[in-house]
Amino acid sequence: MASDIEIAQAADVWPIEKIAEKVGLTPAEWEPYGRDKAKVEIDDSRDDDDLGKLVLVTSINPTPAGEGKSTVTVGLADALSLAGENTMIALREPSLGPVMGMKGGATGGGHSQVLPMADINLHFTGDFHALTSAHNTLAALIDNSIYQGNPLNIDPRRMIWKRALDVNDRALRNAVVGLGGPTSGVPREDGFDIIVASELMAILTLSHNLMDMKARIERIVIGYTYDREPVTVKDLGVAGALTTLLKDAIKPNLVQTIAHTPTLIHGGPFANIAQGTNSIRATKTALQLADFVVTEAGFGADLGGEKFLDFKAPLLGKTPDTIVIVATVRALKMHGGMAKTELTEPNVAAVEAGLANLGQHLQSMSRYGVPVVVAINRFTTDTDAEIDRIKAFVADFGAQAYTADVWGQGGAGATELATAVIEAANRPSNFTPLYDAEDDATVKLDKIVRTIYGAEGVELSDKATKQLRQFAQYGWDKLPIIMAKTQYSLSDDATRLGAPKDFKIHVREFIPKVGAGFLVAMTGSILTMPGLPKTPAANNIDIDASGHITGLF
Amino acid sequence: MASDIEIAQAADVWPIEKIAEKVGLTPAEWEPYGRDKAKVEIDDSRDDDDLGKLVLVTSINPTPAGEGKSTVTVGLADALSLAGENTMIALREPSLGPVMGMKGGATGGGHSQVLPMADINLHFTGDFHALTSAHNTLAALIDNSIYQGNPLNIDPRRMIWKRALDVNDRALRNAVVGLGGPTSGVPREDGFDIIVASELMAILTLSHNLMDMKARIERIVIGYTYDREPVTVKDLGVAGALTTLLKDAIKPNLVQTIAHTPTLIHGGPFANIAQGTNSIRATKTALQLADFVVTEAGFGADLGGEKFLDFKAPLLGKTPDTIVIVATVRALKMHGGMAKTELTEPNVAAVEAGLANLGQHLQSMSRYGVPVVVAINRFTTDTDAEIDRIKAFVADFGAQAYTADVWGQGGAGATELATAVIEAANRPSNFTPLYDAEDDATVKLDKIVRTIYGAEGVELSDKATKQLRQFAQYGWDKLPIIMAKTQYSLSDDATRLGAPKDFKIHVREFIPKVGAGFLVAMTGSILTMPGLPKTPAANNIDIDASGHITGLF
Repeated sequence: MASDIEIAQAADVWPIEKIAEKVGLTPAEWEPYGRDKAKVEIDDSRDDDDLGKLVLVTSINPTPAGEGKSTVTVGLADALSLAGENTMIALREPSLGPVMGMKGGATGGGHSQVLPMADINLHFTGDFHALTSAHNTLAALIDNSIYQGNPLNIDPRRMIWKRALDVNDRALRNAVVGLGGPTSGVPREDGFDIIVASELMAILTLSHNLMDMKARIERIVIGYTYDREPVTVKDLGVAGALTTLLKDAIKPNLVQTIAHTPTLIHGGPFANIAQGTNSIRATKTALQLADFVVTEAGFGADLGGEKFLDFKAPLLGKTPDTIVIVATVRALKMHGGMAKTELTEPNVAAVEAGLANLGQHLQSMSRYGVPVVVAINRFTTDTDAEIDRIKAFVADFGAQAYTADVWGQGGAGATELATAVIEAANRPSNFTPLYDAEDDATVKLDKIVRTIYGAEGVELSDKATKQLRQFAQYGWDKLPIIMAKTQYSLSDDATRLGAPKDFKIHVREFIPKVGAGFLVAMTGSILTMPGLPKTPAANNIDIDASGHITGLF
Repeated sequence: MASDIEIAQAADVWPIEKIAEKVGLTPAEWEPYGRDKAKVEIDDSRDDDDLGKLVLVTSINPTPAGEGKSTVTVGLADALSLAGENTMIALREPSLGPVMGMKGGATGGGHSQVLPMADINLHFTGDFHALTSAHNTLAALIDNSIYQGNPLNIDPRRMIWKRALDVNDRALRNAVVGLGGPTSGVPREDGFDIIVASELMAILTLSHNLMDMKARIERIVIGYTYDREPVTVKDLGVAGALTTLLKDAIKPNLVQTIAHTPTLIHGGPFANIAQGTNSIRATKTALQLADFVVTEAGFGADLGGEKFLDFKAPLLGKTPDTIVIVATVRALKMHGGMAKTELTEPNVAAVEAGLANLGQHLQSMSRYGVPVVVAINRFTTDTDAEIDRIKAFVADFGAQAYTADVWGQGGAGATELATAVIEAANRPSNFTPLYDAEDDATVKLDKIVRTIYGAEGVELSDKATKQLRQFAQYGWDKLPIIMAKTQYSLSDDATRLGAPKDFKIHVREFIPKVGAGFLVAMTGSILTMPGLPKTPAANNIDIDASGHITGLF
């Protein structure tokens, strides 16, 4: 069986100008980056009112291998194109760190991939590198300010702004910097995050334009003074330089699927400590250019889905017209109590036992008033009996489930799903937000955990309670809440699969992201710098004299 | 008076396809990066025997502000174009770290600039970011190998491979990493270099093709085992992945001057701990495409010039046809004993006293058997009497000096210089190497310091002597020598200006760069991670809603 990169390398890639023409971009609205990638900046005068239909792809709580959400997103969009709809995709950019470790790319798989797959997974158009550059430039400017007499009175023990790289490097999680004597800075504790965890990543993907981005960058809180007052980038006076470093990174990137469906790939914020979806600009641009836009949100519906609907949609000024929940037979078996090694064995009873997880997501997504469709991402080991059991469960709920064999067949494997999505998207929807912007943080939290997770409420640690009092003084207490929780369970305990009952969510602490404009509620210890496995993917990647790459997925 | 960026922004930039056509590239030989930048990879079948004339621009020992070598390089090339010669330029890429600090860019100045100036000085086509990515990926893979049972028996106290960023960040010079307990690595001393100091930068710029680069990467020594045996990237098995990360960075970048002279800008290795010139591939490509190629070497003729002639030229397979030594009235005054604050005052006697520095470089460069021409980079404060004194001195030496007002006039300010360069390049030259590849390291060192610096010989520290014995065991003792010395003096003492006499050069230690293929001879403490000044340039850089940048030079 051909690997993802072999299928990608065998594909017929159109010159990017042909894709740009297909979506109606004028020559002034795009710039080439190589032969098959472009940066897009559409004209301000483009119509803002006649937006396309928005399809949000999310999923049940996934297995560690993932449920193929990106693959379904790509395959569904190709199927919509096949059905004659003028369709675009809006996706996140993959992070390079995990590519060298073990994780699959974020460009789909099999015959439902975005091209050029290798480039997108490596440096792409340099957006993440520009962010890394801006992130570490800010860190250097902060340490330089402390070194040069510390005019802002920054307390080096109360720094928020760490350093960042797009590398999986556990050795950099915690470091002591500024060593080497009086000419080499002031010693202090520090650490590195992976760049997708940077607040600048969240800001880039939330900004409508350069000036919005600059204003958000100015509001970033980098730490506190010895008097416990927040210190911002504005205080340092370097927001202009950082915005200059991000002047091209803010522009969405145009590529194509194997079936030539135009695709915008832009930004890649984490789905736990940030909003976990592609940029506002990319989604908006796609909605202005196409009649159907398929996009996805990271992790399951409890994390990415909720954030898309409660946080991204209001900023975007557009709510989804259909929500697609991706489920797989093997994930449902895991939720039904099977071990990872047993997932390829036919077992209708295990599927049955696991359906409660899908049920919770169907219920929580349906409450937003948007039509919901279930996509069963089909694997070769799935049996008809298992598939039928899922379909019956979804039908009992009042919705419909369709199989999608997009890995093997591309868009042709999702014809029924596409028809259902078109039908659903044209149904009138009546979006109902989960909470009001003016709700207190505890009220917002309570609504999220009860309605979306099925929890009995929320418990704040002493630290978290104290922080909310502090934040009220700084004026941050009404910021939207971004939940940082395990993706594997509806609860904050990764081992509780299915649809756990009688549990509360424990908020250990809040992390203020004032520039991005949200408070992260930490429900456990979230690793913001991954490590590499015993045998990293890097050991298998190779390239020959002609530039042909092997071992990249 | 208009600033560099104002002049650059007012210039008429041709679409890059017009520049590509001008130099005769076929569509398959270049890829656009935006509208005014391209990556070039010329066809293997291109003629290798009929290379253009090569003009090497170097200088006397500079003042801290620099002698405008890049500006003269650009202006001279524009003058050669004006004279009807099919001319290209081959330059280094600027490093972003210093751009946020205080240093001018490496894209020339005034009316002798390369465009798009802002992009080239910011992220350009991402080459340095790809290098940073590969550099830190290797570092993470090394620490991961130590963490995962240390199968290669690496001694964490004897690591050579540090981490790297393209940021001026003194706080990262020395760091302790791997802190945080058993899940976050193994604690050890580490530090960050600026990316231009990375051995990968040297390798990228020395490699003829992908496979040459991979072989060099395999030979990189990252540290030693507990038994003091060298550990290489080949031992780690990740050269393929690192080469894959550099697959596009190895391709030279095509841009243009204000006068539309096609320019290849590629790579930026330090001129002290590396060879300090643009890539072999860029220079070679330019020589294959053009009749005249103007290139430069970092720092003065004692550092960049010597390395170009003794190290780069043999690898390039082509020696210069003319050497241009750039001098300025103000630098000669400094060599003549004047203080930095007195350099704008007319003072023929001070110029006279400083001419010994120019004399040493004239003598050392002439010994290679290549015609030498002196370019006086004219400043508005220079007097005719001062200029005439320089011209007379050079004439006594048997060479010719010409003024160049390229900052103010572009190519039109270097007409006479261009005529002299054309005449010199067409004279028969008889290149005589300084040393044999098979000479012992001490013999190579002795020849460099006596002939090029005018020293009385070289003294090795006990450590350096011991290292040479060790290197003989490893088979590294015949590698070419790269001198790391202050750029301000011919000696290893930055305060001894002019042409010092009766001095020896002190080699404190050697740094083996086995992948790049040279031994760095350290004659003092060379800072491989700069810091930021009290008021960094970043505080003045800004961008408006339309993307217009201010404060960048």
